[in-house]
Amino acid sequence: MTKRVLVTGATGFVGRHVLSPLVARGFDVHAVTRQTSAHGTVKAAWHHADLLSPESIPRLLETIQPTHLLHLAWYAVPGRFWTSPENLRWVGASLELLRAFAAAGGQRVVGVGSCAEYEVSDRDCDERATPLRPATLYGTCKHALRLEQEQYAEGRMSASWGRVFHLYGPYEHLERLVPSVITSLLNGRPALCTSGVQIRDFLHVEDVASAFAALLDSDVQGPVNIASGTPTSVADLVQRVGSHLHAEALVRLGAREPAPNDPPRLTASVSRLHHEVGWRPAMSLEQGLSHTIDWWRSQQRNSR
Amino acid sequence: MTKRVLVTGATGFVGRHVLSPLVARGFDVHAVTRQTSAHGTVKAAWHHADLLSPESIPRLLETIQPTHLLHLAWYAVPGRFWTSPENLRWVGASLELLRAFAAAGGQRVVGVGSCAEYEVSDRDCDERATPLRPATLYGTCKHALRLEQEQYAEGRMSASWGRVFHLYGPYEHLERLVPSVITSLLNGRPALCTSGVQIRDFLHVEDVASAFAALLDSDVQGPVNIASGTPTSVADLVQRVGSHLHAEALVRLGAREPAPNDPPRLTASVSRLHHEVGWRPAMSLEQGLSHTIDWWRSQQRNSR
Repeated sequence: MTKRVLVTGATGFVGRHVLSPLVARGFDVHAVTRQTSAHGTVKAAWHHADLLSPESIPRLLETIQPTHLLHLAWYAVPGRFWTSPENLRWVGASLELLRAFAAAGGQRVVGVGSCAEYEVSDRDCDERATPLRPATLYGTCKHALRLEQEQYAEGRMSASWGRVFHLYGPYEHLERLVPSVITSLLNGRPALCTSGVQIRDFLHVEDVASAFAALLDSDVQGPVNIASGTPTSVADLVQRVGSHLHAEALVRLGAREPAPNDPPRLTASVSRLHHEVGWRPAMSLEQGLSHTIDWWRSQQRNSR
Repeated sequence: MTKRVLVTGATGFVGRHVLSPLVARGFDVHAVTRQTSAHGTVKAAWHHADLLSPESIPRLLETIQPTHLLHLAWYAVPGRFWTSPENLRWVGASLELLRAFAAAGGQRVVGVGSCAEYEVSDRDCDERATPLRPATLYGTCKHALRLEQEQYAEGRMSASWGRVFHLYGPYEHLERLVPSVITSLLNGRPALCTSGVQIRDFLHVEDVASAFAALLDSDVQGPVNIASGTPTSVADLVQRVGSHLHAEALVRLGAREPAPNDPPRLTASVSRLHHEVGWRPAMSLEQGLSHTIDWWRSQQRNSR
């Protein structure tokens, strides 16, 4: 049977890394983006559509007739995405997409959720045990969409939901933690950080993308955490970057106040990912950071 | 301060009964409907728009600039509404409406929920204590929309959510319980019922509408059950109808199988409605049924 996947948000942070692993798994890959520029070298069919203009969606799905849907597109402007009304628009657009996918004969959907769906906890977030109590509009909209997707899919199609924790890697937004620390240190400037006692789960974006490809290619139902399973403090992370770049002295822990409501711990149980999806990361944190630092170095070189 | 309300679904079962109590409370009432025929005698400004065509919504809200929003519109075809994909469209349309309402300066919204949001329980459903675990797509979409509305409203506007239980009265769909029993008996035909042991909460639609007007006109936040607070068995209800019409013998309890998954009990705590909104029903079940039977009698007379 042909596996034909429609990937939304295909030029985004995860999207640009997911096309290769999907092709490698034998998917006929169709990618949708609002952008009209060139799209790299991966063997994929590109389609131009604005998912926020819902009248275009049914035709797109009828044309492609995908068997699988990996819906990565969302509003993602750093800082703003937590509270923006755009979250409401993306719920609506995602529901339109889901309806059109079912109407065009779609068989399996994987949606993209977030650790922000969970209630704050001092244990690893577990898909079956941790209560869902999002504190933000972003988290609430993802949580609500997951409920709707799951109920809509029942009896209609196979459905899963990957909950992303913290990710980093090439093409990440410069304002975010890892790029801002790396580029500061590469330029000999101090990296002003919080105390860094927060515990997080960091996964390289290529691994995140590879995990989504594996999840899509499986029959696993319901939510699955997409994470490394290795709790790491922010201080540990930024000091590793400092050490890589022989710039430990430029890493200034405690120079900034943490964001309000920043939870002390946000880590993932990866039991479903390991044992049901059968996927494990290819890169350690050390390897992932090294790879990311090399990429930022090459970017700086190219821009000179 | 002028209180200007936009009422959606204003020609629907609840909507057509809600305009009078809103006018009586001093609201400048603006009603929106897809229909283009005449709209009765209540002093309201009528607007024609299809909320499922989202491009029309922002302009509508900009034109009216309502301070209040009572959003009754939804997909409501008997039987089908539980599982229809139309539920997804109404979530999207409701979120568009909410966004446009906020953008146009809206101050208070009341959304319409359902007892179908609650987990089945052998106690009265309580807004603060009963878990929310909808078993249907309809209930899930209402539940998800409430979560989104509540989070979106935070810091932006005042928001409440009326959860309707079982309602009956003039203009109810003929296929539903009360009209089908009344019209059968009025025509001398047997009313084939289930055993009727299910316990429900029945409230006359004029009381439902009056409760929504009171809720909108209050500052109460969050979900509020809209119900009588008087648990009643289906058998008791239909026998009262039989007795009113001196047709007890035509009420055939046990002649039908109950619907699958029909919960044995679905009743409401009305503590918030009584003590926070300060509202109580004007009609007893006896009065409400008598009024409804009279209305169906007049309908039959008019159609001859």
